[in-house]
Order: sequence, then C-alpha cells, then structure tokens
Amino acid sequence: MSAEGKGAPRRRVVIVGAGFGGLAAARRLRRADVDVTVIDRMNHHLFQPLLYQVAAGAVSDGECAAPIRVKLRRAANARVLMAEVVEFDVTKREVVLERGERIPYDHLVVACGMETSYFGNDGWKDVSCGLKTLADAVDLRDRIYGAFEEAEREPDAAARAEWLTFAVIGGGPTGVEVAGSLAVLTRQSSRRDFARIRPGETRIVLLDAGDRVLAPFHESLSRKAAAGLADLGVTVREGARATAIDSRGVSISVDGADERIPARTVIWAAGVRAVPLAATRATATGAETDRAGRIAVDPELTIPGHPEISVIGDVAKVAGSDGKPLPGLATVAIQQAAHVAKAIRRGGEGAGKPFRYLDKGALAVIGRGRAICEIRGLKMSGWPAFATYLGVHLFYLGGEGKRLKLLTDWVTTFFGNRGNQVITGELSTVERAPPPAVGAAR
Amino acid sequence: MSAEGKGAPRRRVVIVGAGFGGLAAARRLRRADVDVTVIDRMNHHLFQPLLYQVAAGAVSDGECAAPIRVKLRRAANARVLMAEVVEFDVTKREVVLERGERIPYDHLVVACGMETSYFGNDGWKDVSCGLKTLADAVDLRDRIYGAFEEAEREPDAAARAEWLTFAVIGGGPTGVEVAGSLAVLTRQSSRRDFARIRPGETRIVLLDAGDRVLAPFHESLSRKAAAGLADLGVTVREGARATAIDSRGVSISVDGADERIPARTVIWAAGVRAVPLAATRATATGAETDRAGRIAVDPELTIPGHPEISVIGDVAKVAGSDGKPLPGLATVAIQQAAHVAKAIRRGGEGAGKPFRYLDKGALAVIGRGRAICEIRGLKMSGWPAFATYLGVHLFYLGGEGKRLKLLTDWVTTFFGNRGNQVITGELSTVERAPPPAVGAAR
Repeated sequence: MSAEGKGAPRRRVVIVGAGFGGLAAARRLRRADVDVTVIDRMNHHLFQPLLYQVAAGAVSDGECAAPIRVKLRRAANARVLMAEVVEFDVTKREVVLERGERIPYDHLVVACGMETSYFGNDGWKDVSCGLKTLADAVDLRDRIYGAFEEAEREPDAAARAEWLTFAVIGGGPTGVEVAGSLAVLTRQSSRRDFARIRPGETRIVLLDAGDRVLAPFHESLSRKAAAGLADLGVTVREGARATAIDSRGVSISVDGADERIPARTVIWAAGVRAVPLAATRATATGAETDRAGRIAVDPELTIPGHPEISVIGDVAKVAGSDGKPLPGLATVAIQQAAHVAKAIRRGGEGAGKPFRYLDKGALAVIGRGRAICEIRGLKMSGWPAFATYLGVHLFYLGGEGKRLKLLTDWVTTFFGNRGNQVITGELSTVERAPPPAVGAAR
Repeated sequence: MSAEGKGAPRRRVVIVGAGFGGLAAARRLRRADVDVTVIDRMNHHLFQPLLYQVAAGAVSDGECAAPIRVKLRRAANARVLMAEVVEFDVTKREVVLERGERIPYDHLVVACGMETSYFGNDGWKDVSCGLKTLADAVDLRDRIYGAFEEAEREPDAAARAEWLTFAVIGGGPTGVEVAGSLAVLTRQSSRRDFARIRPGETRIVLLDAGDRVLAPFHESLSRKAAAGLADLGVTVREGARATAIDSRGVSISVDGADERIPARTVIWAAGVRAVPLAATRATATGAETDRAGRIAVDPELTIPGHPEISVIGDVAKVAGSDGKPLPGLATVAIQQAAHVAKAIRRGGEGAGKPFRYLDKGALAVIGRGRAICEIRGLKMSGWPAFATYLGVHLFYLGGEGKRLKLLTDWVTTFFGNRGNQVITGELSTVERAPPPAVGAAR
C-alpha cells in the first residue's frame, strides 16, 4: 500500500483539527506507511450540519458528536491527542502544544476550521448565542426552553412577548435552519405544553444584511426558501443590518432607518472566521489570508513555499473551476482530505497535483418537508430536496449505530415528539443574562 | 371522580418538586376536581437511578431526563412552573417564589428531595463530583473522559497513574454503581481507544466509612456485592473514612492510620441532606427534622398541626412497620404520592389514613450481569437480580418512546459501544481543577 520501502523511517503526519476534513484525512491514511497524529481541542468530531437540531431539542448532543478516538478506531496508525496547538514551528517542523510539548512532523495538515466571528463586536458574544460548537448548541437549547419557562411565569403581556421573540441574525444555511426549526418547535411546544402561551405570541425574526437569504444559492431558490420560512411563520427581514445587541434585543438598520426588535433570545449566525492561531501562524510562513482569516493556498492545497504544509476545509482559501472561492462545505473538506492523503501516500512533498472540486451540490433545510438543493445548476425544492437532504446527512453521519437512533429521533420530531428538550442547568444558570427590567415592566 | 360539588371553588394543590414523588402525586390528581401547580427549579424530571449511566457515557442526558411538562401532558389540571420556592407562608397558605410571586394553596405537597451533603466540608464540593443532578452527571462524564485524555498525553508514569485513579467515596447504591460501571468502562476504553494507557494502569477505589458496602441490604448480599466489585477490578476499602479531599486525591483514615490515595477524579457519593429550604421552613411550622434535614411527619404524612401540608419522598421521615425509617427509594415516594393524592381527592384536611409502605424490595446493580436484590427477605444476586433490575427500571422509566432507545443504548454498552462519551466542554473546561504539579513531575 505504501510507496516507501520497508526500511525507511516512517513519515510523521500531524493533522490539526478533527472536523470533516481532518477526520477524513486520517481515515484515508490508515493503510499508508505513515504515523498519524490527530490533534483537536475537543475529544469529539462534531457533525455540524445537525447542530441546530440539538439546539431545537430534536436530537441529543451525543447523537450529533462522536469521540474522535471512536471514529478512528480502525486507523491503527493514528494517535489522537486532545490538546491545543499554539504554534507551528515551520523551521523545525514541529507543532507546539499549549503545555510546551513539541510534536514533530514531516507533513502537516491544517484543518482547524472556523469559529464564530462578531466582526469586532466581541461584546455581542455574551448577549447572543453562536452555533458552532456542541456547547453552543446545548446553551442555545437551554436558552430557548428557558425563555418558554420565563414566558409561562410572566403575567405581563409585553414582557412575555420579549421572552417569546427569537431574533436570528444571518440568513445563511445555519440561520435559515435555526429559524425554520424554531418556528416548528414553538408552534408545537406552545400548543401542547404551556398553558399561558398562545400560539400567536411567539415570533421568530430572521435578519439578513444582504438582499436575500441563502445568497450562495440561485436567486429562485432563495425566494423559495424565504417563502417557505414565511409559511412556517418566520418574519424574514432582508437588508437588515444588526447595529447593536444586548440582553433585551437587537437594534437594526434598514435602508438607513434605525429599528429596535425586543427579544430575549438573539442567535448569531452571521459570521465565521478562521481559528486565530491558524491565520496568524500561516501568515508567519508568508501565506496570505483573507478578511475572515482563510489561508490562501496553492492549487495543490499547500502553503506557497511549504509543500509539506497542506491546508484543507473551511480554513483553506482556494478557487474552484469558476474562479470563485470554494464554499465552506463538508463535501469540499472531504474531497480535499482525500486529495492531500493521496499526495502524502505518494511520497509527500510537492508531489501533489492541483486539487479539483467535484461539485456535489449544496443543500439547505428550512423545516419539515421543506428544503432547497442545487446540484450543478439543477435546482430542487420541497419534499424531493428534503428527501435528498435526509439521505445525504444520514449517509455522511457514518456508523456507530447512530443512524437508526437519529432517524427515529428525527422522524418522531415531525410528529411533535422532542425527547431532548431538557434544560441541563438550574434556574440560575438559565438566567445568565439577568433581566434587570422585568420587575419594572410588571 | 370528585367528592366535591360542582359549584364549589376548585381546591388548589401546590406540589413542590417534580421527582418521583411530586410527579406521581400530580399524575394521580389528574382526574380530581382540583387545580394543581407543580413547581421545580429544573424543567425536567430526572430518572436518578440511571444518572451513573450518563456519567459513564452509556446513555445520553436526554434519555435520563424528560421535561416535567411532557411528563404531565395528560394532566390537564396541572400547571408547571420552573421556579425556586423560597418560603412557605403557612399562615396565609401561600408558597413564595424567588421573585416574590405568591402561589396560594389549599393543600401543599412538599416533595423537594435531597441534595448532596459534604457533612460541613463544603470545600470538597469544588474538588469532587457529586451525582444528584443532570449537570453533575454531565460534569462527571467530562471529567472521566478528560482524565483519559490527560493520561494519554502524559509521558510520566506516576502522573499518568494519578489521572487513571478514580476514588469513589461512599459505598451506598450510587457509589457501588459508579465504581462498577467505571471498572467496566475503563477496561473497554483503555483497551480499545487509547494507545498509551495499559489496561492494568487504571484503578478504581471504592471507599466506605462503614464496615460493609450496601449496608441497608442483608450482610450476605453486601459480601456478594463486594466480591462482584473485586471481580470487576474495583479495590473495595471498608472502614475507610475520608478526612480530606483536594484536586490531587483523597486522604483517608483506616483504623486510626492515615493514608493518602492520589487520584485526579474523586467522586462523592457519601451523603445527602434535605434541600435546606424545606428543612428550615418546616422547622418554622414546628415540625422536627433529623440530622440530614428530613422532616418528621405524622403517620398520615402530614406535618403535625398542619393537615394541609403533606411531605413525601426522601425528604419525609416516617417509620415503616418495623419501626425503622423508610429508605429513600423511588417506590416509597411513589406509594406516598398515591396515598396523599387519595387523601386530597377524598376532600383533604385530616381525612388521610396512616400510610403503609408495601415493600417492593431494593435493588443495586454492580456491573454487567451483576446485581443484588432483596424483596421481603428474599435475596437474589447475579443475572436473576440483574434481569429484575433491568425490567424494573425500564418499567418505571415510562413512555415517550424512550424505553426502546434506552434499551438499545444499554445493550450495546455491554458490547463496548458507548455512544455518549462526548466531552461537551473544551480543553480549558476539563481542566477546571488545574494541575499545578504536572510540569514538575515530568
């Protein structure tokens, strides 16, 4: 299987990040004559496309994530370290961990992904919920169900309305998915489980600064998505830019006019940036980064002048055949991982060919039976797109007996059964952003 | 169904706590001509007997808990409030919530249960893990799997041994269950998923201050349990009293001699006490409490002089037919709930008959296929007891489609499949008790 002779020392491959790209790279290298070390800050691989379902209480956190070790059980040549990388020492070819350990490499694969970006407004982090990590999703779930509990207790209608308004900032796939599933869930929950909350009282507002939601898709699909959201009861506000967020709501600017949306739950799905480490360290090697910190790589997916460093996944900035940068999709990351693994198996340095992305299309789900899908110009919407979405996600979710469980959870959700709407924290935890004016409002 | 006339105002029943007792009481009252308000600090009912399985990564947190609202969906006369009770105003017959709301009652059911007690050593709380709440279990799971990650990173054998030693304090059912499942899990995990950790390196020490584990059971069963634990690889230390706990281990006193057990993970399963509120407020009514804060009640389960206040579950101190206090078991709480609901349905005040506990036996599980069981003098152990345990727990776990899912999770665990061993937090969260001397040890 290996291109190298038996007598040569085994090459060491270090993979930073165990998202879709990093994990796929390690798996593709399992029969190669190399030693692989996978380093991640978390112990788990996260199935990010399902994160919004955790937040909505539809699937449990354990169903949306799996330990990296378990995912790599069959890769006997891979070692997993839960650690934080603080430096790439490209001269010595070593990765430096947060406690000073140095892990030498012959080939480095940077696959550390993106994190939530507040575009410099870091104070917004404390008053809104991101949706990039498992902790984010569990936190958002606690807040959503906590808001319902607060509303149920609150006798004042205006104060209740604040608890029952959910503002989602950002009309990309995550924002659309969250808004759609919130609409379904609030309708179900308010009807069944809360005595005081009337179905019409809950309000979901999706704010997008651009002129249409799901902008990377064809315009006709964006329109269908917006219509689908409206159908579910989501208020879609296009051209609405957030100018301030606090614990009581969000201020927006629409066509130069200021407006205020009182909302106790603000979900931030508007921006991502490269994990800062990757960006800074890559720049030190002479690589260029874009505004979001993505690292510009050669067509071979390596850093210019460093054929031993590959960058894959969301953090890699590379142009597709149409000249536009490739989107941050799992399929892109997985194809890049396969490409890099092949180059490494072939012997490494500079041996890679240019990467070519085979477009597998893009999908976004809006709600039960509503989705849009675009594959090489082919546009789908409604149930066919939704069925494709389900199929693709179950396929990529992989084994470990989770598929069946997840499918059960999912399907029963359509019938209003949410097994995971548990608030882990106590009352005091839910009130993290304390409501100073509730008393005054009464 | 009701003893009262249609024209009379509906009586108001307030139930504080939605554990086994409170939930059963609300359910039993669902056809009674009363308005029920259930108040709990959490939004979920917790299936406490399975908590150790969450900590062991065998079942997910959502499988071990269900929203109280969902559990009470069929009780149309019940309202659920997620709130904290700060006072019982027995003169005005009102329950006061933490934000000043007052909930009037005609009949009050106190079912607020117990919390972890450190016998006055409140500093131990920060350096050990309790196991009474869902957050406790998730936290313990993070620590257990975090300890493995640390050990995998640690080159020094002595430092690694510290990470791989798990000290469980308290030989009651919880302590025994945790120790047993830790033994099974460490064996599986270390063999399969960690390259550096050798199976013999992990050590589980169960410390009991008394002269035998599971003291409430017959002595022969205690012996069997201890032997079963030893079989699984647990070091059982009887007559070992914890004298100090810190982030690096536990100091014990055995027959007057001091000893130190270095361990990064210390699990506290040694003591419980009544939620302080209940104890203090009950005392204000003239009721007596024992050392653990349990409220001494009349044979009718009401507070002396207050026939409108019932106390049920772990927090009630009442003697069984043998004169000994009834144990803190779910079956006791559920029977008491039925008794109180009957009295309330009959018309309330003072109308109750003395409560008589129908002994349904007690169970403790040690590990895969190992359990002990004692029902009215009948003693069982091994697989028959284990099968009984499984059956009883699945029966009591109730509906919501969780039984099947749980059974699947459970059974696959026996084959080494743990779907829920995810560390929710990031690296920094896992290191909450920072290891100052790790660097020095290397």
